[in-house]
Amino acid sequence: MDHSESSLLDAVLASIDETPDPRLRQILTTVTRHLHAAVRELRPTNREWEQAVEFLTAVGQKSDATRQEFVLLSDVLGVSMLVETINGADTGTESTVLGPFHMVDSPVRELGESIDLVGKGEACVVTGSVRDVDGTPLAGATIDVWQCDENGFYDVQQPDSQPAGNGRGLFHADDKGRFWFRTVVPSHYPIPTDGPVGDLLTATRRHPYRPAHVHVIAEAPGHTPLTTHMFVADSPYIDGDAVFAVRGSLVTEFAEVTEPAYAERYGVSAPFRHAHFDIRLTRAAA
Amino acid sequence: MDHSESSLLDAVLASIDETPDPRLRQILTTVTRHLHAAVRELRPTNREWEQAVEFLTAVGQKSDATRQEFVLLSDVLGVSMLVETINGADTGTESTVLGPFHMVDSPVRELGESIDLVGKGEACVVTGSVRDVDGTPLAGATIDVWQCDENGFYDVQQPDSQPAGNGRGLFHADDKGRFWFRTVVPSHYPIPTDGPVGDLLTATRRHPYRPAHVHVIAEAPGHTPLTTHMFVADSPYIDGDAVFAVRGSLVTEFAEVTEPAYAERYGVSAPFRHAHFDIRLTRAAA
Repeated sequence: MDHSESSLLDAVLASIDETPDPRLRQILTTVTRHLHAAVRELRPTNREWEQAVEFLTAVGQKSDATRQEFVLLSDVLGVSMLVETINGADTGTESTVLGPFHMVDSPVRELGESIDLVGKGEACVVTGSVRDVDGTPLAGATIDVWQCDENGFYDVQQPDSQPAGNGRGLFHADDKGRFWFRTVVPSHYPIPTDGPVGDLLTATRRHPYRPAHVHVIAEAPGHTPLTTHMFVADSPYIDGDAVFAVRGSLVTEFAEVTEPAYAERYGVSAPFRHAHFDIRLTRAAA
Repeated sequence: MDHSESSLLDAVLASIDETPDPRLRQILTTVTRHLHAAVRELRPTNREWEQAVEFLTAVGQKSDATRQEFVLLSDVLGVSMLVETINGADTGTESTVLGPFHMVDSPVRELGESIDLVGKGEACVVTGSVRDVDGTPLAGATIDVWQCDENGFYDVQQPDSQPAGNGRGLFHADDKGRFWFRTVVPSHYPIPTDGPVGDLLTATRRHPYRPAHVHVIAEAPGHTPLTTHMFVADSPYIDGDAVFAVRGSLVTEFAEVTEPAYAERYGVSAPFRHAHFDIRLTRAAA
């Protein structure tokens, strides 16, 4: 009892010293040290502490089956991208953030099928491949893709006007590791701003926009799963992503194609846009 | 784009640099710096990051009108007590944590009235005074008290078996700054362990107990409000409070009284317990 600011930290650290799991002990020790350091540096009033509690509570309570506000908070503070940077492989395709919209399973679709169930956007064909870092095609790799529509909304955000599964698909690469599917060009969009994270962006005069992108999770046996995006090269905000997630190597041309023969091959009408994305997966540690 | 771990921090800090409110800018800058430093030190896997998001979301979602799990989290990590320590006055009665159970208004009661509406615990009389630090009685000061019952539960935790307002009272000191009321001796108790903070205590092999105490908020015009506890001197866990909130100056004898005349004066039967608590408030800054 009768702790000073620093002896209080020592008491808290001593209380978690018997934690059986050494990694949990390490995490809690480091988090507690930084938490106390931040509080001692900032010297919050009781009211400011209450406001912090209210903010974090609101972030938790805004989350539900189709909305993850703590992921958004992590995203806008650059923490999600930092974790990706820490875990990114030195070789292979670069990763980027998962984002908050991967909360429903993507419907399994056949190669060539369209993930766009509405038909109002600009037609687009995506082709690509999944290979090992040495170039070996990874036959049967899975490619899980999800994207917003031409207006910038994911299906889960508009359950009344978009069919469930719109913009989503789980594909299996062919025996040469290739995949292709039809879609519409996604739009840039604001992250959801009707919650506490939106209030935070407003209070800090930050814009909420992300450049247009298609989310991808690629997996193959014996390889480390990859969570990444294909960014649309000519999208607004390509240089100012609200969640700091753009990597130059992931910026992909969505080129306009006018040849009818080429359109026919993919079952679309010319003109359409075509993006190609080659993925290299690193081998998993044994 | 293409940030390193450290340039990513710079980009996030630059993004909040236009925050109009200088205090908010300072808070966000400091929090972001420490958050990134902790993550870079810990190097969490993607799964560990997900678990952190899930934990914080569960803390928010466990909170409701009568439960504040983020306050509990702040309490068990010593952050609440750190904020109290930072804001404590150099003079006057020492403060301690608010705790998570002050979420309903205490019923206004007359001096001498009982806050115990059940009548099963050990009878207790609390007397005290509210004075300025120079000793001047603060006539009409308000004393808001709340406590658990003899089994360690607050009314809001047992809406079916305790009447609303049990263990709570808002008193006005008399013209000499004095207050007195009847109650039962509160029990030591575990903080609620049926949520994510309870899981954290289990995982760290920490006990959840708090020594017995009566919460007090004392206020008087022109003075800084005081949030504190009277701790029951002979309570278990007086040296091991799960939320690090005991201060020696707040430990109060709840002495057994056997004289019938003394009991009669307060409208109780002997034997009963008597606690006396003198409060000194510091003058508010002009």
